[in-house]
Amino acid sequence: MTMTKLKQRSLLGLKELSKEEIESILDRAAYWEQHPNKVHTAMQGKFAANMFFENSTRTRFSFEVAEKRLGAEVLNFSAAVSSVQKGESIYDTVRTLESMGIDAGVIRLKPIGVLAEIATKIKVPLINAGDGNNEHPTQALLDMYTMRKQFGNLNGLSVSVVGDVQHSRVARSNLWALQKFGAKVRFCAPANMQASDLDVPYVSIDEALKSDVVMMLRVQLERHETGMLNSAESYREQYGLTAERAAKLAEHAIIMHPAPINRNVEIDDELVEHPQSRIFPQMENGVPIRMAVVERALS
Amino acid sequence: MTMTKLKQRSLLGLKELSKEEIESILDRAAYWEQHPNKVHTAMQGKFAANMFFENSTRTRFSFEVAEKRLGAEVLNFSAAVSSVQKGESIYDTVRTLESMGIDAGVIRLKPIGVLAEIATKIKVPLINAGDGNNEHPTQALLDMYTMRKQFGNLNGLSVSVVGDVQHSRVARSNLWALQKFGAKVRFCAPANMQASDLDVPYVSIDEALKSDVVMMLRVQLERHETGMLNSAESYREQYGLTAERAAKLAEHAIIMHPAPINRNVEIDDELVEHPQSRIFPQMENGVPIRMAVVERALS
Amino acid sequence: MTMTKLKQRSLLGLKELSKEEIESILDRAAYWEQHPNKVHTAMQGKFAANMFFENSTRTRFSFEVAEKRLGAEVLNFSAAVSSVQKGESIYDTVRTLESMGIDAGVIRLKPIGVLAEIATKIKVPLINAGDGNNEHPTQALLDMYTMRKQFGNLNGLSVSVVGDVQHSRVARSNLWALQKFGAKVRFCAPANMQASDLDVPYVSIDEALKSDVVMMLRVQLERHETGMLNSAESYREQYGLTAERAAKLAEHAIIMHPAPINRNVEIDDELVEHPQSRIFPQMENGVPIRMAVVERALS
Repeated sequence: MTMTKLKQRSLLGLKELSKEEIESILDRAAYWEQHPNKVHTAMQGKFAANMFFENSTRTRFSFEVAEKRLGAEVLNFSAAVSSVQKGESIYDTVRTLESMGIDAGVIRLKPIGVLAEIATKIKVPLINAGDGNNEHPTQALLDMYTMRKQFGNLNGLSVSVVGDVQHSRVARSNLWALQKFGAKVRFCAPANMQASDLDVPYVSIDEALKSDVVMMLRVQLERHETGMLNSAESYREQYGLTAERAAKLAEHAIIMHPAPINRNVEIDDELVEHPQSRIFPQMENGVPIRMAVVERALS
Repeated sequence: MTMTKLKQRSLLGLKELSKEEIESILDRAAYWEQHPNKVHTAMQGKFAANMFFENSTRTRFSFEVAEKRLGAEVLNFSAAVSSVQKGESIYDTVRTLESMGIDAGVIRLKPIGVLAEIATKIKVPLINAGDGNNEHPTQALLDMYTMRKQFGNLNGLSVSVVGDVQHSRVARSNLWALQKFGAKVRFCAPANMQASDLDVPYVSIDEALKSDVVMMLRVQLERHETGMLNSAESYREQYGLTAERAAKLAEHAIIMHPAPINRNVEIDDELVEHPQSRIFPQMENGVPIRMAVVERALS
Repeated sequence: MTMTKLKQRSLLGLKELSKEEIESILDRAAYWEQHPNKVHTAMQGKFAANMFFENSTRTRFSFEVAEKRLGAEVLNFSAAVSSVQKGESIYDTVRTLESMGIDAGVIRLKPIGVLAEIATKIKVPLINAGDGNNEHPTQALLDMYTMRKQFGNLNGLSVSVVGDVQHSRVARSNLWALQKFGAKVRFCAPANMQASDLDVPYVSIDEALKSDVVMMLRVQLERHETGMLNSAESYREQYGLTAERAAKLAEHAIIMHPAPINRNVEIDDELVEHPQSRIFPQMENGVPIRMAVVERALS
């Protein structure tokens, strides 16, 4: 196989991916959702390595379930219990697992730009499971899958992303991918959480509530020590999706959140499993999406 | 399947389980002990998640071996390397794994009452692998299995549990279950380690040694900083199973311990693998017991 | 099977292993290298436990890949997330996993002498994955495999091991095994890193560069706080394989390193993937070597 073909099996981000490529992943996920227990013998004996240089519960397990459903063997690497502590570089770890014969690598890491650089040096397909505040493509894919399932079509859909968009790879991947499909993406955030690198209209929380999709982001108050929003209470009051605000949503609108959730900070506890919430269905959809993405990498 | 049937496949504790249910688990374990390598194809493609919000070696591996012997896929979650650090609640983790399509969850956690509450909100069968000082049902099941194997019958058997019964879920699960079978359970403990919530006769260490089964508990001296027993030496002297005391046991009596062991504190080093000790056989029996319990959950 | 036969399936070190035994492992690894995807059904249902009482990335994953390629079930134990924290002894952990029915144990631990003692008390075959500064037999086997692949024959080969040989189990295992095959092993190390227990000629770094194989060791400067070599810069200057020094190597010579690597300390960054370097091929060779060693244990 040529290097170019191998690279086409990687998934580093959605910004550079064509609408057609994204669509084919969403369609293949729909197939897997219909065939959850189909054993995919073509993947037997293949190895997927989940390399998480940043803590994760949800995303790591979602990939692990997807890989095992595909019949692949799984290696789990987590930086906290490894020789990365001894100063080994991220590159050396990826290269080491490549040497051991893995067929695909799923990778989460903090420093921005490192993944793209590693991908040029590594032959094995790599899947981005979140790199700094740059991209989190499989999260955005499962978000789009959830929206498509709900509304049939993404074209013309209004999506408001509320919260710390500056630090959010989920916001970026969703923005870049949704725009390819004609969705209208708007952000809602306090001044110190806005993303100066992105050309997106900012709206008030009241305006955001008028959207078809209200996507709340996890807020990490420890990153914003000063200012008016330095307490969970004041954040909730100004930008949180409270029960009172949720009552203003259109009947057809849905609530989304990439999780983990700060209950009663960015979203009220009682809304997490509200009829209009798609938070746990998002996690459900993560498995077929990752089956499609891992299958694409291993094929 | 109805919700009631699903709940019947959970195992939250032995207190509420009927004698017949317990007996059927012990019998099924006997089957698995006879067929250790039988591949159980019915479990293939099913996912069991081991969710340990408290450290564990023995119990977690015992479940993992049982699950893999049944042919199930295994997910291991340990709080120390997860987003629980980021404040994610136990409920959200369990609910997340449920969303990803697991077929059964094994759970260990500290706070009492949380498991029962989660079980009412979760559809997937849950198996209690130890919750605070409340119950540890699979440990008591393997203990009963070990006693039944030794004595044929539990009815009339005298069992003395020695040590920190106040903090012991092993003592509680054994007490409640053994009583259903007509065993005579007695406790032996210093005043500050007695369980005021349980109606059980307390006996001296000399009296305890006259039992058919002497079950020693792990003592955690760091929990009892004051008093006469604040050193390993004084605890051993007054409540430990020393070689000298073991010599007084009836010939047919057996020594048990749920492990991990503090050698030379609650039990002398040389007694751990003594001919009358069943400590490692208990661990051996843990695998078929957990196969029976997990199979029941996955069926 | 007799106890003696069982013990012959363990691999505690290379010092006591015959040349013929070593050769048969290397030959079997060559078979596995040729048949990477052959499913070895004879190992199905067998359990291998990787018990690491010391952190490891490379070695643990290498064993895990090997075990899974053989079709065995894998249990991973790492001390940092276990009840070893509660003071449970290494022996009790190994004995516990044995009770649960594992068929082979891979073990890494710090204290010297403990492994040999445990092996006398345990029935299941044990494989040494590194014990203190004593032996690391599978590393030396993969090193010898790499050299044999390069040069066809180990007899008469000159091998220089450069660095902290005093603390190096890699140096010891290689020394003892290579000598059985007639290789000429020499060490190169500053005075405070020399091994007084070994009878090996020491040479200067310039002399070491004349060897067929230059094996660089990871230096852990934190172990040597005083003296002239207390900085990465001064160590590199005096004992590091710099690009300048590498230019003096014979055309046929190869560079080896057991990894993890301190780039620009014991070896220059640009040499790690140099045409004469075998560092990543060593890792590649680790998988078939460990397949041969684990297969031998499980047979």
